Amino acid sequence: MINREENKNRKFAVILSGCGHQDGAEIHEATLTLWAIHKNGADYQCFAPDVKQQHVLNHITGEEMPEERNVLIEAARIARGNIRPLSAYRAEAFDGLVIPGGLGAAKNLCSFAVDGPDFTVNEDVSQAIHTTHRAGKPIGALCIAPVIPAKVLGRGKLTIGQDQATAAALAAMGAEHIATWQGEVAVDEKNKLVSTPCYMLDSRVDQIGKGIDNLIGAMLRLS
Amino acid sequence: MINREENKNRKFAVILSGCGHQDGAEIHEATLTLWAIHKNGADYQCFAPDVKQQHVLNHITGEEMPEERNVLIEAARIARGNIRPLSAYRAEAFDGLVIPGGLGAAKNLCSFAVDGPDFTVNEDVSQAIHTTHRAGKPIGALCIAPVIPAKVLGRGKLTIGQDQATAAALAAMGAEHIATWQGEVAVDEKNKLVSTPCYMLDSRVDQIGKGIDNLIGAMLRLS
Repeated sequence: MINREENKNRKFAVILSGCGHQDGAEIHEATLTLWAIHKNGADYQCFAPDVKQQHVLNHITGEEMPEERNVLIEAARIARGNIRPLSAYRAEAFDGLVIPGGLGAAKNLCSFAVDGPDFTVNEDVSQAIHTTHRAGKPIGALCIAPVIPAKVLGRGKLTIGQDQATAAALAAMGAEHIATWQGEVAVDEKNKLVSTPCYMLDSRVDQIGKGIDNLIGAMLRLS
Repeated sequence: MINREENKNRKFAVILSGCGHQDGAEIHEATLTLWAIHKNGADYQCFAPDVKQQHVLNHITGEEMPEERNVLIEAARIARGNIRPLSAYRAEAFDGLVIPGGLGAAKNLCSFAVDGPDFTVNEDVSQAIHTTHRAGKPIGALCIAPVIPAKVLGRGKLTIGQDQATAAALAAMGAEHIATWQGEVAVDEKNKLVSTPCYMLDSRVDQIGKGIDNLIGAMLRLS
């Protein structure tokens, strides 16, 4: 049973990485994160790094388009304009941090999609994860995004669903992979990390919603 | 009680108008349309007109950006690449048609945002509405999108929430406005038109989801 009244003063920060799963934030995951936060009676503030996208892809053909886009400006499409640069994030002002997936998480928030296991993490993203973790507040990561807290913290029980290569990469960073299926979450109580596989598995949109609702529920419990 | 088994062979066409509420499809409304269709056990196919966007707006500042984008290619971000040009739509292959809102519906699917009540409708959009209506199948319209079936059909009971100017425009086209609040739907049983106000009212994301879930439920009942 959701206690919406109890959650009405809770506010989560959501880090977006653009707008569109091939070169930015996965739109269904990002939208359903905002939906699940509101559904549980809490509130959110969106953030994104003010950096150039790695590239712009045509989402029909998958081919690169000859243009440049800014992660913060494109992410504002999902946030309906209410978004702040990630450099302005302060852990003390929020009850937790959520990072939706999409390849933007692995291209614009860090370089995992390009560099593999030896990747680097955007400084503002790294700082946001460190300060949130040190403040004892929960961090939620969807789809491919769990590689980011795994890299920054060097530990944690996390899920990316069933993909063996990505699970091996998580282990190489010092994290432990928990295999999950659609709608399930992995909850690391000690490190306050919650993750759900979303489109790392072939999923219907309502399964994405269910997994994220479970993730937000677990984050509220840990916050 | 949802009968997901009964709905599993139902398929709705969804017409997107870009990606982002200021110059394209409203992302929350579009995503929650796909979510509600799947939640009710049915399936969807996304479509969009293969035309240039009226313009590209920075969703933080609201200012025009000096670039061009294509409605079909941008809408593919919401559809995860699984989208077809609206010219390929055939009413006989679907159980109904849904048009999410966002200013793209009033800028790229028709010229309402520019021309007011004397606007024109994109030919493929007009054709899709005419053929679906003639086939006796339901049409769902969200947010500002009800102006489109009102214009094309010249009749129908529809809602755009509470906005007096838009309600008057609907009346001028021969439609009847039904005032609604968050989460409510207007159902025109005779003309098989279903509408819900979404972001025509100040709304939380879960209220958007609730209204669209009610709209899809009514459309399934009418199909």
